[in-house]
Amino acid sequence: MAENRASGEDSLIARYFKPIATDPGAFALDDDAAILKARGEDVVVTTDAIVEGVHYLADDPPDTIARKALRVNLSDLAAKGAVPAGFVLTLALRAADHDWLEAFARGLGEDARSFDCPLLGGDTVSTPGPVTVSITAFGRVPENRMVRRSGAKPGDRVFVTGTIGDAALGLDILKNGPIAKALAGDPTGRETLIARYRVPQPRNALARAVRDHASAAMDVSDGLAGDLAKLCAASGISAVIDAPSIPTSATAAGLLARGAAGIETLISGGDDYEILCTVPEASAKRFAEAARQAGVAATAIGTVMAGEGPPRFLDAQGQVMALTRLSWSHF
Amino acid sequence: MAENRASGEDSLIARYFKPIATDPGAFALDDDAAILKARGEDVVVTTDAIVEGVHYLADDPPDTIARKALRVNLSDLAAKGAVPAGFVLTLALRAADHDWLEAFARGLGEDARSFDCPLLGGDTVSTPGPVTVSITAFGRVPENRMVRRSGAKPGDRVFVTGTIGDAALGLDILKNGPIAKALAGDPTGRETLIARYRVPQPRNALARAVRDHASAAMDVSDGLAGDLAKLCAASGISAVIDAPSIPTSATAAGLLARGAAGIETLISGGDDYEILCTVPEASAKRFAEAARQAGVAATAIGTVMAGEGPPRFLDAQGQVMALTRLSWSHF
Repeated sequence: MAENRASGEDSLIARYFKPIATDPGAFALDDDAAILKARGEDVVVTTDAIVEGVHYLADDPPDTIARKALRVNLSDLAAKGAVPAGFVLTLALRAADHDWLEAFARGLGEDARSFDCPLLGGDTVSTPGPVTVSITAFGRVPENRMVRRSGAKPGDRVFVTGTIGDAALGLDILKNGPIAKALAGDPTGRETLIARYRVPQPRNALARAVRDHASAAMDVSDGLAGDLAKLCAASGISAVIDAPSIPTSATAAGLLARGAAGIETLISGGDDYEILCTVPEASAKRFAEAARQAGVAATAIGTVMAGEGPPRFLDAQGQVMALTRLSWSHF
Repeated sequence: MAENRASGEDSLIARYFKPIATDPGAFALDDDAAILKARGEDVVVTTDAIVEGVHYLADDPPDTIARKALRVNLSDLAAKGAVPAGFVLTLALRAADHDWLEAFARGLGEDARSFDCPLLGGDTVSTPGPVTVSITAFGRVPENRMVRRSGAKPGDRVFVTGTIGDAALGLDILKNGPIAKALAGDPTGRETLIARYRVPQPRNALARAVRDHASAAMDVSDGLAGDLAKLCAASGISAVIDAPSIPTSATAAGLLARGAAGIETLISGGDDYEILCTVPEASAKRFAEAARQAGVAATAIGTVMAGEGPPRFLDAQGQVMALTRLSWSHF
C-alpha cells in the first residue's frame, strides 16, 4: 500500500501559497475551485500574464515579479472603476526553487493584503520554458457601472495619473542602454526608474473617482500614445494632447531637458500602469479634487475632439509632432 | 504622424478570438476587462493551464489543444455542481502561426458554444518557450451550494463516471510505448484511447445531480487512486474500493484481460476528467437514476469508511492491492 503522501505539486502549494490564501472563498486551496461572492454587483474580470525575459527579466527579484504580475491586473481593475475582490494564479515553473518561491509568495501575499485582493486559487504546472505567471483578477462594480474605453465625447478633458515613461527608461537601464550611461552619475535616479519598471503602482485609490466622473478609461500599459489611440478608436473620437503637459518624473524631465531621452520614448514605451481617462469638462474640477483627496496625481493633458483620426500630440510650439511608433506589441 | 494601426497582438485577437466572443459581457474583446453577472448565485472559479510537451504533445491537432484546455476546467465546474458561466484565456505563443491559431480558435469556439461557456476575455503574450494555454473558468451555483471535497461520510457510496484509464493508455500509444505495440492490430482501439487523452469529455450534464445528491466530489485528473486519496484526506475519512468494479472501456478491459496493462496503470494515470463523488446510501439510487437521465454512466465502486488511512483497493479475491504510485505530479 502506498503512503497517502501529498504530491510535489500539492506540497509546494501547501507550503508557499496556502498561508496567503486566507479568504474563506479560497477554501485554504484544498479544493478544486474557489467561491467569489458578487454581493449583488457585477464581477469585473481581467487577465494578464507576464513571461520571464519578455515582461520581466530573469534576475529580477522574485518578490517584484509577483508584485508586478498582480499589479498589472490591479491596474486594469482600477481603470475600470472596480474594487478588487480576489485573484487566481497560474504559475508555470521549470523547477521548484525554494528560495525563489518563498520570496515570490512573500511579495504576492503582501500585495494581496495591502490591495485587499485575496488569493482565491490557482494552478502550478511544470514547463521546460520561461517562468510564466498568469493572473486572473476580479473586482466588483455596481451593476452596469464598469467604466468602458468607449464613452469619451468631444470636449471631454484627457487625464493621466502619476508620471509617464519612467518604466521604459528603467527597462533601458536594466538592459544597459543609453539611459544607463546618461544616468551613470545618478544612482538614485537609476534606482527610481528601475523600481518603476519592476513594481508598478496601480492607482486603485482612484477607482471610485474614475467611476464617478470618467466617461472612458483604460490603464496605460503599452505606451500612452498607442493606448490613447485605442481609447479614441473605441470611443469613435480623436484627441489633441499638449505634449509638454504630459507628467514626467524629475529624473525623466532631466533626461528630456538635456536631450538624453526623447518624449517619443516616454509616450511609446510600455509598463506605466497609470490610468488614462476622459472626464466631461463640467466634472473635471470635481475629478481633480477627488484625485487629490485619494492622494493620486492626475494631470489634464489634452482634450477629446470630434473625428476619427488618431490623437495628435502638439509640441511646445503648438506643432503636431511626428510619432513613428505608437506602442509596443508582442507580435 | 504614425498611422493608427492595430498592434500585431490586437489584430491577432480581433481576427481569431473576437468572432467567438459573442457574450455581451465580453465587450467584443475591445475593452480591458469583462463583466460576469452572478445573477444572485455564487461564482465558482477554477483555473488550469496546459503546457506543450507536458500536458499535450506538440503535434496534437490545435483544435484538440483548445478543447482540452477548456474541458479540463469545465470538468472542475461539473464536479463542483456548477453551471458554466464563461471563461478567460491566456495564450503564450512563440509566434503567430495562422493555421494553428485558426484551428485552435475554431475548436475553442465550438466547445464554448456546445458547453454554453462563453469566452469573456484574455491575454495573448509572446514566449520563447512552449505554448502555454491557461484558462480560468467560471460557473454559478446557488449560494453556499458548491460541492466540496470535504463532505464525505462513512457509509457513503463512492461513484465514478465514464471509464477510467483510457487517457493514460492513449498517452502511452502517442509515446509509442508498450500499449502501442499491444494494440498494433487494433487501429480503432488505438484511436479511441488517443481521443480520450486529447479530448476529455467533461461531465457537465451531471452537475445538477452531483449538487443534489453528492456529499463530496472532485474531478479525476491526476489518477483515480491519488485523487480519491485527496478526497479522503479532505473529508477526514477513508474508503474501500472494489477494483474489479472500476469501470473500464472495452479496449482497456481487453488489455487488462490479456495482461498487456495492469489496473495500477489505469488508476494511477492522469487525464481521465471523470467525476469522482460520494453519495449517502439513502440517495444512491436517486443519484444513479439522475445520472441515467443525464446520459452519463455512473458506477458505484466502493464505500466510504471511518478512519484516516488512504483508500484501500481490493482485488477480485478481496485482497488489498499494493499500489506503489498513486498519481502523477509535476514536481
